[in-house]
Amino acid sequence: MATLQDIGVSALINLFGAFLFLIAFAVLRIQPINDRVYFPKWYLSKERSSPRRSDGTLVGKFVNLNYKTYFTFLNWMPQAMKMSESEIIRHAGLDSAIFLRIYTLGLKIFVPAMVLALVVLVPVNVSSGTLFFLKKELVVSDIDKLSISNVQPKSSKFFFHIGVEYLFTIWACYMLYREYDNVATMRLQYLASQRRRPEQFTVVVRNVPDMPGHSVPDTVDQFFKTNHPEHYLCHQAVYNANKYAKLVKQRERLQNWFDYYVLKHQRNPHKKPTCRTGFLGLWGNKVDSIEYYQEQIKEFDHNMSLERQKVLKDSKLMLPVAFVSFDSRWGAAVCAQTQQSKNPTLWLTSNAPEPRDIYWQNLAIPFISLTIRKLVIGISVFALVFFYMIPIAFVQSLANLQGLDRVAPFLRPITRLDFVKSFLQGFLPGLALKIFLWILPTVLLIMSKIEGYIALSTLERRAAAKYYYFMLVNVFLGSIIAGTAFEQLDSFLHQSPSQIPRTIGVSIPMKATFFITYIMVDGWAGIAGEILRLKPLVIFHLKNMFLVKTERDRERAMDPGFVDFKETLPSLQLYFLLGIVYAVVTPILLPFICVFFAFAYLVYRHQIINVYNQQYESCGAFWPHVHGRIIASLLISQLLLMGLLTSKKAADSTPLLIILPILTLAFHKYCKHRFEPAFRKYPLEEAMAKDKLEKETEPELNMKADLADAYLHPIFHSFEEEFSSEEKDVESHREVEIPEVRVDKHETMSSSSVTELGTPSHHHHQVYNSSSPTSHYASAYEQSSSQYEYHYDAHQYEQHEYRYN
Amino acid sequence: MATLQDIGVSALINLFGAFLFLIAFAVLRIQPINDRVYFPKWYLSKERSSPRRSDGTLVGKFVNLNYKTYFTFLNWMPQAMKMSESEIIRHAGLDSAIFLRIYTLGLKIFVPAMVLALVVLVPVNVSSGTLFFLKKELVVSDIDKLSISNVQPKSSKFFFHIGVEYLFTIWACYMLYREYDNVATMRLQYLASQRRRPEQFTVVVRNVPDMPGHSVPDTVDQFFKTNHPEHYLCHQAVYNANKYAKLVKQRERLQNWFDYYVLKHQRNPHKKPTCRTGFLGLWGNKVDSIEYYQEQIKEFDHNMSLERQKVLKDSKLMLPVAFVSFDSRWGAAVCAQTQQSKNPTLWLTSNAPEPRDIYWQNLAIPFISLTIRKLVIGISVFALVFFYMIPIAFVQSLANLQGLDRVAPFLRPITRLDFVKSFLQGFLPGLALKIFLWILPTVLLIMSKIEGYIALSTLERRAAAKYYYFMLVNVFLGSIIAGTAFEQLDSFLHQSPSQIPRTIGVSIPMKATFFITYIMVDGWAGIAGEILRLKPLVIFHLKNMFLVKTERDRERAMDPGFVDFKETLPSLQLYFLLGIVYAVVTPILLPFICVFFAFAYLVYRHQIINVYNQQYESCGAFWPHVHGRIIASLLISQLLLMGLLTSKKAADSTPLLIILPILTLAFHKYCKHRFEPAFRKYPLEEAMAKDKLEKETEPELNMKADLADAYLHPIFHSFEEEFSSEEKDVESHREVEIPEVRVDKHETMSSSSVTELGTPSHHHHQVYNSSSPTSHYASAYEQSSSQYEYHYDAHQYEQHEYRYN
Repeated sequence: MATLQDIGVSALINLFGAFLFLIAFAVLRIQPINDRVYFPKWYLSKERSSPRRSDGTLVGKFVNLNYKTYFTFLNWMPQAMKMSESEIIRHAGLDSAIFLRIYTLGLKIFVPAMVLALVVLVPVNVSSGTLFFLKKELVVSDIDKLSISNVQPKSSKFFFHIGVEYLFTIWACYMLYREYDNVATMRLQYLASQRRRPEQFTVVVRNVPDMPGHSVPDTVDQFFKTNHPEHYLCHQAVYNANKYAKLVKQRERLQNWFDYYVLKHQRNPHKKPTCRTGFLGLWGNKVDSIEYYQEQIKEFDHNMSLERQKVLKDSKLMLPVAFVSFDSRWGAAVCAQTQQSKNPTLWLTSNAPEPRDIYWQNLAIPFISLTIRKLVIGISVFALVFFYMIPIAFVQSLANLQGLDRVAPFLRPITRLDFVKSFLQGFLPGLALKIFLWILPTVLLIMSKIEGYIALSTLERRAAAKYYYFMLVNVFLGSIIAGTAFEQLDSFLHQSPSQIPRTIGVSIPMKATFFITYIMVDGWAGIAGEILRLKPLVIFHLKNMFLVKTERDRERAMDPGFVDFKETLPSLQLYFLLGIVYAVVTPILLPFICVFFAFAYLVYRHQIINVYNQQYESCGAFWPHVHGRIIASLLISQLLLMGLLTSKKAADSTPLLIILPILTLAFHKYCKHRFEPAFRKYPLEEAMAKDKLEKETEPELNMKADLADAYLHPIFHSFEEEFSSEEKDVESHREVEIPEVRVDKHETMSSSSVTELGTPSHHHHQVYNSSSPTSHYASAYEQSSSQYEYHYDAHQYEQHEYRYN
Repeated sequence: MATLQDIGVSALINLFGAFLFLIAFAVLRIQPINDRVYFPKWYLSKERSSPRRSDGTLVGKFVNLNYKTYFTFLNWMPQAMKMSESEIIRHAGLDSAIFLRIYTLGLKIFVPAMVLALVVLVPVNVSSGTLFFLKKELVVSDIDKLSISNVQPKSSKFFFHIGVEYLFTIWACYMLYREYDNVATMRLQYLASQRRRPEQFTVVVRNVPDMPGHSVPDTVDQFFKTNHPEHYLCHQAVYNANKYAKLVKQRERLQNWFDYYVLKHQRNPHKKPTCRTGFLGLWGNKVDSIEYYQEQIKEFDHNMSLERQKVLKDSKLMLPVAFVSFDSRWGAAVCAQTQQSKNPTLWLTSNAPEPRDIYWQNLAIPFISLTIRKLVIGISVFALVFFYMIPIAFVQSLANLQGLDRVAPFLRPITRLDFVKSFLQGFLPGLALKIFLWILPTVLLIMSKIEGYIALSTLERRAAAKYYYFMLVNVFLGSIIAGTAFEQLDSFLHQSPSQIPRTIGVSIPMKATFFITYIMVDGWAGIAGEILRLKPLVIFHLKNMFLVKTERDRERAMDPGFVDFKETLPSLQLYFLLGIVYAVVTPILLPFICVFFAFAYLVYRHQIINVYNQQYESCGAFWPHVHGRIIASLLISQLLLMGLLTSKKAADSTPLLIILPILTLAFHKYCKHRFEPAFRKYPLEEAMAKDKLEKETEPELNMKADLADAYLHPIFHSFEEEFSSEEKDVESHREVEIPEVRVDKHETMSSSSVTELGTPSHHHHQVYNSSSPTSHYASAYEQSSSQYEYHYDAHQYEQHEYRYN
């Protein structure tokens, strides 16, 4: 049990850390040289093409010499608040705007709750204690004196707590209702105001049945011509491009070698680089490397174009999936919402995700396999959630003082120091947990992929759900109750259901200090780290030094990043859970939560305006999950309060408290019916209105041309472009040229990432930026190639991978 | 604990009772006079218009004189088996055919299970007992010796039981899958083969928004013309006819009095009947009753026609509901399956039920009210399920020997008799339960009505679901564990979750005898009683004697009845539960279940072919519930077996058993996805095919005329007809005339029931059947009027009620 002093130390450390990050950020962001790290969004939206600079000197190009700007180091905060919500929607998309609303929702729920709890509950709790008449120091030395633990059993003062819980629940539900209403309206307005996009007219059809003697496109064409005769327009088949993708990868490797030898030759023009053709280049004939690889690449390109033709023509490589387009939004909405065939496992239709949102690999999974996959992943997630805690518990047992003393007794003199002691108790447990949680989202994303969802946005939401369950069991329950999650599960199975909330309820007030430190480490310092963007900063400058030749290269070197919903949403939901559970139990936790929400709101607002570039637009499809989990948190808090009060022998309050979960559930059901369809189905009324408007404004519209290639596998899109630029490239490989890569509007992200991967040659065999000296060629190459791998870290690498398969 | 002997006595009693019923049935059914009681279906389908008779004499018209037919008293059984399934579908509808399939499914699941269990488990159980080497009498004196209780703890013989449970689950799932597949196919085939019906083209739209300045029909018309321009045809508004329905009731009462005085005058032509006009006829002016009521009725008819005009014209009396018809099945299917408005609580569309299936009263419930109603009813059902047991437990405590001795010690000499003792122990507890369960379905139906479902078929299914929960908790759990359900709930809340299946599991083998008697009382004797149709028999003959003047009247006096899904489905599901739970625990129960299924199958097949006339056709919409509850039974049995084995200290078997529920759940999920949509949505492929076929065969079709009045409130339909016939009636009230009541095709049931209620006059003031002597007039009237009330018993009365409001 940490004392208030420990928390004070921890708070100081974290505040100091956060402050340090903020100072660093304030200094770094006003340097022109960092402009592309801290304001990439403006470059992407073409509103800025070169850094703002304080003066015209050469030094001023890199360093901010205007000393005045250093004194206003917090002025990003008011700047972040300047943009209105509708501007944010235009600037960064609806997802980002709705994401920010989660933070304001947190503030709206918790600030009044905090005021109420601090005004009503803290005095009640303090006045109830047996320690009230003792010295002030004693009272404040333990945070428990401010919590419900301080109230004596059977006290009638618990009715204050019940009353506050009622008020709080009603207030939270009211806020949730208003917010759901707002978000649903925003979503529909956004959809209504969107310009024409292929996904509005398109439906993805899965499990096309195999008709003997008919190819997939024929079957699809015939089916939709028969069953949607009035609105069916055309369709796009999906190809199994796995083999082609493999060739693409091999060609990349060859290209890398080629680039390497070209570079080598450049550095030492007198010596022709040679290599052996045999296994791993260890034996075989010695040949001129550049010519050899040039030859190989040529051959490969020939093979690839053959393979490409084959893929596009061979009906066996066509997957039983199609993107079916209609001549109106109404037709597409009807097709997506209705059942097509009498066998409900065939002709499964759903709204097509945006082309850039599709996870191509999962399109071909048959129905029965989906059932099995879901079962297997369900069991795996369960196992992961309940067994993952074992290593965490081990580390945590190390990270407390007694454990540390036991494992490393020689450290005792150090750990006996008051400051170190406080640091260890306040800081380490939270940090250990955080590190363990770091690799988890990737694992969960892979699991969601195996489950077979076809849109990246859905994958992220599913991964977020799994992450939330994990956090709920391991962070929340796991921290409250000692022992591994599996032990908990076991003990819960052997306890009575009414005993469980009691067991947890009793421990809850005692863990308030832990969660306060957790909020400070994960929340405050974590968010401050987010704004500093240390990793992109370093990477950008490395790239800038060694790779960038042209403005286009510099643009590519920017890594704006994005709001990573699959990590941020679950942790946000955990903060909601903590706030809701502790609102009545230990109200002193609320100020920490409120500071977190306010600070994170500012930071993310700044980042969304200036930095992040979202990968896709789901129009707030995650809101029902956010809403649902806040409701779940309310239910959990009510159950736990009930358990806590039972243990306080205030059993006569149980009937009063049992009404609350029932009402909360009813409220949830109502909201679900009232708002959720807006997130699942496109109303016909809206579709028809949009269609009509469009027909009036653009009566002569060639829809078919627009839709023709929108849903072609991106690999075919981008390598068409690649080829044209690459081939030129190989032929004229010592000239400086700026490749004219046309970036398709809807393919921005994928094709640009593909381009980056496919043409590393651009970076290496051309004249470098004047600022980097020629003698650095070799090391530059090595660095850049290692950085190249580094750059494609966990997340990006994956993304790359699934786009290719 | 009843002994095998007790069961033997009980079985004998029940077998004897069943046998008696069957003999009575065999004798009664071949009497020509009972022909309309035992073969009404043939009269309704117009395949029979007069009883088959053995000879042409007058006596032969009433009594079967062909003595040979008496010897073949069981020949209804092979007769019942003669008709093929497709004939049954044509003859009695799909619901009946699918209902029969539940019984064959029971046989398919339980007969092989019985063979397996008796061959494998009974020897294992018997051989394990410590009593194996003792005398044979001892072994058979207790049914427990055949059950799993006889196996010693920690015995490895439990692996036999686990193996059988595995085999049984796999077998049951295989059968369930095949059956679901069959039923879904049958349903789709039936829908495809149906001739044109209004519900195929119609969608019910609820929560039409209130547009200021527009009437509901205008709003609806405009909305659907805009959003379904290609297929919208017309719509039918729904009127609030509550006031009109009240007038109809009052007029009925007047008509009754009028009939009474006419009859009185007929019996005593010399004395004009008089009455007083004041309060309850106790004071006021004395007037000629016949003239007075004639006058009153005339006035009423005038008021009613005014009110009728008002209802049809006043836009304020229009409900925000409409039946919207389309020009194709495709259009209707699309509208029913899609979301219309961006506010998902407005313009709620769903497939329209058949006109005769609609529960008019619930059409006008707004969305928010539905949420609240569901919450309230949910809580009420919970309370009902858990508190209803208190009176049952009281009666059951009386109905055992000790209880009876305590309450009525003077009965001790009688209860000490062996036979009486066995009778009491074997028979009474089951009977007490049965009586309590008798009034329950009505209560549950009313609850479902409050919940706001708009189709009678849905109401019945919802009531059936509630009844099932009730039976599960009170009959199954309540019988296994002593004490009221609320006590159980309380004790469960204070037990660990893993303890609950153990507690129940341990008691299960001990309650096998109780359930065997229950199967015999409720199943065997109950089903035999079903075939005898004692109540309809008596009522028919009373009606026939006193009311019937014409063939049409005789037709009306028939009460064919129908399969009452809301009672039969839950009890069937209870039998499945019992069979599944005891299959491994006490296999000796299985033969009783199998006999029940076989016998009930025969009886219901006979009844469906010869007697029942279903009220509506839901095309097997109840099957998903049947399937789901059998799966639930499998899960329950697996959990309980796990608990039982834990208590037998065969804990190492738990991992083996824990896989089973997971697989069962996965199987259920798969089936749900694979088959359930066929019961919820009409596939567009089917709709389009049907539309096309129709367009080819009948190119010039005036759909609008067909659909115009199909969904008018039946009260307007029928009273239009009523008025024409009634008014004639009142004017010429001593002539014999056969009223020409046109019975609308789709309104058969409702309008005929209305006619029966609205015109009791037909029965009374006209010349009676020659067989009933004139001197019986007075008593005949009294009898027929009391019978009249009796005839409209619980169920029918209600039905009448909701059709009028």
